[in-house]
Amino acid sequence: MKKVAVIMGSDSDLPVVEKAIDTLKSYGVPYEVHVYSAHRTPEEAKSFSQCAEENGFGAIIAAAGMAAHLAGAIAANTTLPVIGIPIKSSALEGMDALLSTVQMPPGIPVATVGINGAKNAALLAIEIIAVGDSILSQKLKDERHKNYEKVLEKDKAIVDKYNN
Amino acid sequence: MKKVAVIMGSDSDLPVVEKAIDTLKSYGVPYEVHVYSAHRTPEEAKSFSQCAEENGFGAIIAAAGMAAHLAGAIAANTTLPVIGIPIKSSALEGMDALLSTVQMPPGIPVATVGINGAKNAALLAIEIIAVGDSILSQKLKDERHKNYEKVLEKDKAIVDKYNN
Amino acid sequence: MKKVAVIMGSDSDLPVVEKAIDTLKSYGVPYEVHVYSAHRTPEEAKSFSQCAEENGFGAIIAAAGMAAHLAGAIAANTTLPVIGIPIKSSALEGMDALLSTVQMPPGIPVATVGINGAKNAALLAIEIIAVGDSILSQKLKDERHKNYEKVLEKDKAIVDKYNN
Amino acid sequence: MKKVAVIMGSDSDLPVVEKAIDTLKSYGVPYEVHVYSAHRTPEEAKSFSQCAEENGFGAIIAAAGMAAHLAGAIAANTTLPVIGIPIKSSALEGMDALLSTVQMPPGIPVATVGINGAKNAALLAIEIIAVGDSILSQKLKDERHKNYEKVLEKDKAIVDKYNN
Amino acid sequence: MKKVAVIMGSDSDLPVVEKAIDTLKSYGVPYEVHVYSAHRTPEEAKSFSQCAEENGFGAIIAAAGMAAHLAGAIAANTTLPVIGIPIKSSALEGMDALLSTVQMPPGIPVATVGINGAKNAALLAIEIIAVGDSILSQKLKDERHKNYEKVLEKDKAIVDKYNN
Amino acid sequence: MKKVAVIMGSDSDLPVVEKAIDTLKSYGVPYEVHVYSAHRTPEEAKSFSQCAEENGFGAIIAAAGMAAHLAGAIAANTTLPVIGIPIKSSALEGMDALLSTVQMPPGIPVATVGINGAKNAALLAIEIIAVGDSILSQKLKDERHKNYEKVLEKDKAIVDKYNN
Amino acid sequence: MKKVAVIMGSDSDLPVVEKAIDTLKSYGVPYEVHVYSAHRTPEEAKSFSQCAEENGFGAIIAAAGMAAHLAGAIAANTTLPVIGIPIKSSALEGMDALLSTVQMPPGIPVATVGINGAKNAALLAIEIIAVGDSILSQKLKDERHKNYEKVLEKDKAIVDKYNN
Amino acid sequence: MKKVAVIMGSDSDLPVVEKAIDTLKSYGVPYEVHVYSAHRTPEEAKSFSQCAEENGFGAIIAAAGMAAHLAGAIAANTTLPVIGIPIKSSALEGMDALLSTVQMPPGIPVATVGINGAKNAALLAIEIIAVGDSILSQKLKDERHKNYEKVLEKDKAIVDKYNN
Repeated sequence: MKKVAVIMGSDSDLPVVEKAIDTLKSYGVPYEVHVYSAHRTPEEAKSFSQCAEENGFGAIIAAAGMAAHLAGAIAANTTLPVIGIPIKSSALEGMDALLSTVQMPPGIPVATVGINGAKNAALLAIEIIAVGDSILSQKLKDERHKNYEKVLEKDKAIVDKYNN
Repeated sequence: MKKVAVIMGSDSDLPVVEKAIDTLKSYGVPYEVHVYSAHRTPEEAKSFSQCAEENGFGAIIAAAGMAAHLAGAIAANTTLPVIGIPIKSSALEGMDALLSTVQMPPGIPVATVGINGAKNAALLAIEIIAVGDSILSQKLKDERHKNYEKVLEKDKAIVDKYNN
Repeated sequence: MKKVAVIMGSDSDLPVVEKAIDTLKSYGVPYEVHVYSAHRTPEEAKSFSQCAEENGFGAIIAAAGMAAHLAGAIAANTTLPVIGIPIKSSALEGMDALLSTVQMPPGIPVATVGINGAKNAALLAIEIIAVGDSILSQKLKDERHKNYEKVLEKDKAIVDKYNN
Repeated sequence: MKKVAVIMGSDSDLPVVEKAIDTLKSYGVPYEVHVYSAHRTPEEAKSFSQCAEENGFGAIIAAAGMAAHLAGAIAANTTLPVIGIPIKSSALEGMDALLSTVQMPPGIPVATVGINGAKNAALLAIEIIAVGDSILSQKLKDERHKNYEKVLEKDKAIVDKYNN
Repeated sequence: MKKVAVIMGSDSDLPVVEKAIDTLKSYGVPYEVHVYSAHRTPEEAKSFSQCAEENGFGAIIAAAGMAAHLAGAIAANTTLPVIGIPIKSSALEGMDALLSTVQMPPGIPVATVGINGAKNAALLAIEIIAVGDSILSQKLKDERHKNYEKVLEKDKAIVDKYNN
Repeated sequence: MKKVAVIMGSDSDLPVVEKAIDTLKSYGVPYEVHVYSAHRTPEEAKSFSQCAEENGFGAIIAAAGMAAHLAGAIAANTTLPVIGIPIKSSALEGMDALLSTVQMPPGIPVATVGINGAKNAALLAIEIIAVGDSILSQKLKDERHKNYEKVLEKDKAIVDKYNN
Repeated sequence: MKKVAVIMGSDSDLPVVEKAIDTLKSYGVPYEVHVYSAHRTPEEAKSFSQCAEENGFGAIIAAAGMAAHLAGAIAANTTLPVIGIPIKSSALEGMDALLSTVQMPPGIPVATVGINGAKNAALLAIEIIAVGDSILSQKLKDERHKNYEKVLEKDKAIVDKYNN
Repeated sequence: MKKVAVIMGSDSDLPVVEKAIDTLKSYGVPYEVHVYSAHRTPEEAKSFSQCAEENGFGAIIAAAGMAAHLAGAIAANTTLPVIGIPIKSSALEGMDALLSTVQMPPGIPVATVGINGAKNAALLAIEIIAVGDSILSQKLKDERHKNYEKVLEKDKAIVDKYNN
């Protein structure tokens, strides 16, 4: 199975990014986690990205805050799908990271998820890996079904509490 | 090869969406184009999404403006990767469509590209299809290289004009 | 008397939504509360909406955060008045939910109230039910009058404290 | 049948508001159109609002731009449902009118539609009038169905053009 | 000497508004404080405004949050200078109140100060009262001079701490 | 009668500012117009402001775009009421000028009007001059009444056209 | 004298960037112009930046739109001062480029000028080169003086036209 | 070596600004710290700026919040490079200070760093001083290298923890 890379621009992003790691783990999708900075270790970010395809990766998740260039910098060095997580920092409520990640110029796409949307980034990576992998695809459907049932249970609890 | 679906919420989105269609065509990736509205033909949008995987699709592109629910509505009905294009409408400079597309709740990811970013949506779909398809992957790398050379040429033209 | 449905996208919205429930209760307007997710239980949301009119509902309140599609998804399946409450989440100060709820395309209206405006959503539903119901209408007027008198009292308290 | 009032803060709003008038007319819902300004003819706006219920109105649509106080000023003087249309003016892309209309304090709700959303304002008013009026309710459903079929036709046209 | 009115839309605004009251008191400018709501006691707000000039007021300060209509509603009923204080509420960081207060249509001005800018609102009112009142004008200049000297002292403290 | 100064940061602001000049002229309020730049002729802006009171001015209007410092720079050098007009420039829809003008720190107020709100700036200046000047105050009331009647006429025209 | 580099991310930025080139030329500051893309020719951007100091450059200007990573990518590869020009594109009024350029993480500064602020970018570069170069510094002062006189002339023209 | 001035508009900005002071100290770059307010001690801010070049300064850092005019006011009085730090205050998440600092009109540049970006402001000042100073330039490169190694170590820690 293709691996998923989880790159964060700073280890201070770990509390958010951990939800992506946990999700990949729970699906049994192999992954590798790294701290690469678009600005402080650009060469490492580049090398990793350039070799990611031949190293068996199928998707790369990149999380960064503020003027979040990491996902774009990785996308510039690979044609693998790159998923960007905009991280909310101490100002502007994450709008800076969102726009810096999503507004990529034509030619270099970044698949952007919501602000701090680490779980969805992992799910998107798994969906990509699952294209043509019916077992993994089924796991996604099973999980969806579990979530569906959880909402049904919550509805039932609310119905019991408020409607009678 | 897996197909790519291109769904638009209204045929008024076509001038933007056409860049996605052209890109898919130029890569020889099979595609299907549809007008499905999350609000006016929700059942059609749902049926298409639920059957997309078994109908041979590998990714779905959804373009919509304003309170752009289309990509999310499709993503709710498939575990295929769904790519959202926020369309700029007559107010708010596309910020409404961007936030409505990207800020998905945990569990249902949408891979969002920039406002009116139809070309990048297609490239992202192709990158997804190309995971494990070395010929298509090579086409993406070749196109990247062509773009690289185009920028070099433009640099040369500018250098010739301004630096002497 | 027509009933009012109060739908929330997640039970985490309950602390906000409870003000709507309390308001409906205080007016003696019959109501039903549910957790239906536009993305995780879309079918339940749809069925409820499609049958709401014949099941005796006169208005539906829908509360959701982030890319808040719930009110729109409900409105797509009923011609009853649908009232949307944008819920403030952990980023962007509720602007995402507001734009996702209010910027509906022509044909499918959502009556949007302010961010976290659960009380006003309930009042709006009651106003709708009260069209042609002179007793309920009078209750609304009485409550307005009580609020009017409360402000007068507060003014009096402030006047006593600051002006002499 | 209850009437719908269509109030605009300035006759310069007419090009937008006309879509509301046309929609009401096409449904055969009786209506009255007025220019009342929250700031320049506040007394007229108030008198109209206070007497609207006894004068046979079932809903009031109010359209205004900039610091759009009109809908709120009307809502303060009636317990009929009041629908606000934020009008886009020469700056800020309509965000000023949207926030001035939707962010009403608890106690005085305004049912806000999207920026320049005159058609949806009329539909919302009709939905309100149609609560308990099965003929009008059916007209809304018929119109929905026509729109549904229009989208199907557009889909067919697109399918014919792009997919073969 | 002309009096200054300090009106707040809700007594929950008092913690912010108190800085305005304190400032007026410290300058010996006579003032009156009231809680009048544009939406819940519109008639009281109107009567006060219409009579303010003949009752000896020279300026009116109005503080409100959210869709802050109070200053505009007062300005619609007097030709005295009206000063608006946008109050920051629980969402949108005060942007809603700022736009609702400042973006007044031509004909009805509101002199808007910064978000929660109660002290500046009072100073502006005093500046208005001081036009042609050389004693009050001198007090403003003296206070400016004191503030000037305070900054000099703070500069000296910083210089002593950091530069040697 | 006190004079009103109209200062603009650049003569490119004249098309907007002219509405302020016209309004002052129509009220017979004496005025002086200047181009002073907070950044390019700061000394002239300062001197003018420092001498404005003794030179017979009662209020100063300052119009500027982008990082609009002019009103604040003038306010720092006078205790006369200073009215700021944020000018919409080629980017950001005037939000930059609005925030730069209105968000003044405690101690130095600027009475801010809406973006490009030149007419309201003049009316505010006239209201300030009119405090205690019953003739000018009456002119303001007469003009308000004329505007009131204009809206009534517009209402009548609309009523004739749409209601029968 | 140190040279100034002017880098643009795309030759479509040239109409804006030309004002920077013209300004450098008018000051006789040597410069070099290039088209380097952070995403399409990242290696060229990097090589240029890494060698810029030893190649005699004293400052680098980088202009880019949308998710404008160029200035940051250059700054990551040099310790020369890097000046970023956010370019306004077809959506969001330039806010995306502004935040992507200015919100750099600690350690890698970018000196950001206003949206489309090409002239100021050049002046900032010249100011940097002029530190310790009294002749160039004097040219800047002379130009400032000329601008000062131009504003005086414009003031005179306005005074002649409006004040008599 | 040229000195760097660190000016803050209020001593309440010190907790943010201290990171700039610490950074200058750690590089052995001489500096001077001052509290000068654009509005309360404009004359001191001006005098300092006008004499800064002849007093041996090579760059000026100016930090201010809200309608942050300080950097622009300083830049208007010197042709030294002026670096602006927008300070986040109690409303609007720092957007007001950012726009007030960065959106300078043509002719008077301010090198703006991110919101609360005191460390980057200092680094930018050092980069400016280091132009032509190979020892200081080397220190910057050494520090970059240290940061590079720190990120490598953090990557190693993360790799050890998550990948095996």
